[in-house]
Amino acid sequence: MTSTSIIVKVPGPADFHVHLRQGDLCELVTPHVLQGGFSLAYVMPNLAPPIKNSDQALAYKSTLEQIEPGVQYLMTLYLSLELTPHEIRKAKQAGITGVKSYPRGVTTNSETGIESYTAYYPVFEEMQNQDMVLNLHGEVPSDPSTNTCVMNAERHFLKHLETLHRDFPRLRIVLEHATTKEAVETVKRLGSTVACTITAHHLALTVDDWAGQSFHFCKPVAKYPEDREALRAVIREGHPRFFLGSDSAPHTVNKKATATPNQACAAGVYTAPILLPLVAHLLESFGALDRLAAFTSGNGRAFYKVQTTNLRAVTLRREPFRIAESLSLKDEQVAPFWAGKELNWSIGSDDDLT
Amino acid sequence: MTSTSIIVKVPGPADFHVHLRQGDLCELVTPHVLQGGFSLAYVMPNLAPPIKNSDQALAYKSTLEQIEPGVQYLMTLYLSLELTPHEIRKAKQAGITGVKSYPRGVTTNSETGIESYTAYYPVFEEMQNQDMVLNLHGEVPSDPSTNTCVMNAERHFLKHLETLHRDFPRLRIVLEHATTKEAVETVKRLGSTVACTITAHHLALTVDDWAGQSFHFCKPVAKYPEDREALRAVIREGHPRFFLGSDSAPHTVNKKATATPNQACAAGVYTAPILLPLVAHLLESFGALDRLAAFTSGNGRAFYKVQTTNLRAVTLRREPFRIAESLSLKDEQVAPFWAGKELNWSIGSDDDLT
Repeated sequence: MTSTSIIVKVPGPADFHVHLRQGDLCELVTPHVLQGGFSLAYVMPNLAPPIKNSDQALAYKSTLEQIEPGVQYLMTLYLSLELTPHEIRKAKQAGITGVKSYPRGVTTNSETGIESYTAYYPVFEEMQNQDMVLNLHGEVPSDPSTNTCVMNAERHFLKHLETLHRDFPRLRIVLEHATTKEAVETVKRLGSTVACTITAHHLALTVDDWAGQSFHFCKPVAKYPEDREALRAVIREGHPRFFLGSDSAPHTVNKKATATPNQACAAGVYTAPILLPLVAHLLESFGALDRLAAFTSGNGRAFYKVQTTNLRAVTLRREPFRIAESLSLKDEQVAPFWAGKELNWSIGSDDDLT
Repeated sequence: MTSTSIIVKVPGPADFHVHLRQGDLCELVTPHVLQGGFSLAYVMPNLAPPIKNSDQALAYKSTLEQIEPGVQYLMTLYLSLELTPHEIRKAKQAGITGVKSYPRGVTTNSETGIESYTAYYPVFEEMQNQDMVLNLHGEVPSDPSTNTCVMNAERHFLKHLETLHRDFPRLRIVLEHATTKEAVETVKRLGSTVACTITAHHLALTVDDWAGQSFHFCKPVAKYPEDREALRAVIREGHPRFFLGSDSAPHTVNKKATATPNQACAAGVYTAPILLPLVAHLLESFGALDRLAAFTSGNGRAFYKVQTTNLRAVTLRREPFRIAESLSLKDEQVAPFWAGKELNWSIGSDDDLT
């Protein structure tokens, strides 16, 4: 007896939003990118301290290459008032791809709000000239006086995206980890220089899933069922400006667990070690398996202007794959998304050039 | 030097929504009602198995009275298809006050939805005749196909409240633990036989507070800042059909903590041991301290037609009160809301009759 072998091939899977951390945790999680099927990682700069200039970015890249040389790392800088047009030109020459904006208050509790984007306009002007990419964490800080909270922080941000695109129409902008119907509609409506990443977990979760389950808590939070459906639909329709950025964000298990009434857990869902099988599993579940290669490689590579031909293909087989309960190295232990559950797809050999 | 002594007195504090559990946990938490300043507890019937008839309710009441005789317990039955008009008459004679409805699916994962209320119409008819109270857990089950999730489950329920009031205009109905602006507006719009309980924790929390903090997770979940403001406003205005029902819901610490990626925590916030100081603290914070006695005693007692005069007063002093980190008995350990934090009010002596 022979059974039908169902396979799909993805040329050069590329994850356009990854957190690789520092120290022992970095050593643990960096190899997971390749293990999860990906050979390109767009690396976030929010270390402690943040990556604020080219020298720091190149040093970090070198560390990552020593840990796992099999991945192409695209580096970013952390948007701050220390960043100058001169530093942007230097970064471009150093091969750095983009600059990431974290709205103050969302991550740093600064009192200066998102309105301060105008302070960065000289930097954005130079980024536009140098054809660098601006990556936006699209949330405004919570503010009870304006009814702003985690559920509508992204919606309230969209006006800033529209303004930035209007003022810098040639600047390539990526709205990161979109979670709402309104975000999808806004990005579709804007011009060809505006794109959008979608995570794997936001294709699976709604608010119900992180209610009382801190391992499913991330920022932006997963929202309403109709928002999840909008994310699924834009992938199903094959829109070229939407692609995978996993926002795979490892935190050690002790920081994800909620053990006491006064300890809130760290925000982040960790998908890197299972990413390509997970995305295949999810896309198949909502009728978009035919979009897998475009969503996880072609669309993002085209927008970022990185290699799109002669890419090594990763083969996925439609065979059950049990997700590990946890992964550890030295004192660091992380739990992958859907720990212990079974996916419908497994990574096979990756020996084809397409 | 003498300092100004600021005190408030509340005659006969009454909590119109309390969970007192079973076994060792019941022994631990039942005395907390009195410790928290309350001498009347409206007791929920969702035990395992649920309290479905008068005999069970009277046996449970006897257990509670043995544990803590200093509290007046008003008993309820769990709405189920086993409940008959005959049993309603029997319950009335036994001194049972109300019947609690938990929409199927929200608590039991039954496939029969809230639509099945019509099956209970003969029971509601007899409850109306007997002047008993119907207590509604006002949420419909989550359903992605209709965009229903924990954030809008209460809003989607309100049409059922309106229908029940239309069909049984003389039946006293309490919408329990309201969390939304729409719920407040709906109850205000309906007739004098419809009232609403509000918990202490929903006056403090929004969705931001239970994001990543499972000890703040309860059902219904805390919602938007404008929803919390609507709850505060209706207390500030002194509306007589809104009163305290704490939904104080103890779960052991190990059931509240989220330790693994596949374990969701139990829903519930535990406020009983600190309830009156907490409510005073909260009402003062939003300018409604003058409503304390009405909100925690008078309004609810009037609606429920229980003793409103010659009540023993509890004295609160405006002196700092440190909340315990946890409370335990035998193997049971619970953590109160805001564990370890400081309230502005402490319970003093309770030796006045007003």
